[in-house]
Amino acid sequence: MLAKVYVNLKKGVLDPQAKAIHKALENLGIQGIADVQQGKVITLKIDTTDALKAKEIAEHAAKQLLANAVMEDFTVIVEKSA
Amino acid sequence: MLAKVYVNLKKGVLDPQAKAIHKALENLGIQGIADVQQGKVITLKIDTTDALKAKEIAEHAAKQLLANAVMEDFTVIVEKSA
Repeated sequence: MLAKVYVNLKKGVLDPQAKAIHKALENLGIQGIADVQQGKVITLKIDTTDALKAKEIAEHAAKQLLANAVMEDFTVIVEKSA
Repeated sequence: MLAKVYVNLKKGVLDPQAKAIHKALENLGIQGIADVQQGKVITLKIDTTDALKAKEIAEHAAKQLLANAVMEDFTVIVEKSA
């Protein structure tokens, strides 16, 4: 199974990288962008055909390593491997 | 509209950050992970109610700034703002 772990900064946490992207888009003349957020996706290929088991492993990995619980939230989405 | 731009390394491009995550997960005793990929998500809040227009702006932004066409692929997914 593939487990995708989406990691985003919690609301209210300053996101200078997103601000830099927003400013750069404006400087390039790209109009109409009200807000920018920047996050990570970590895709884990897990040796199991059990979606629940895959989700459990991915959530454990996210808590232990992939997301910083102080300032980041994460979401896990499990899908079949291609 | 919200446009999510997913940016991933092209296949075959060396991904040391993913390798580091894989190794660290093993060191933490998290078993059963066959492969790791690491990418970015940039969420653009775009001032329009037209999904096609939002997608066009996001793809333009991705080509101009968000993705490095030499070594990265991108996918744009447009959804309604919450």
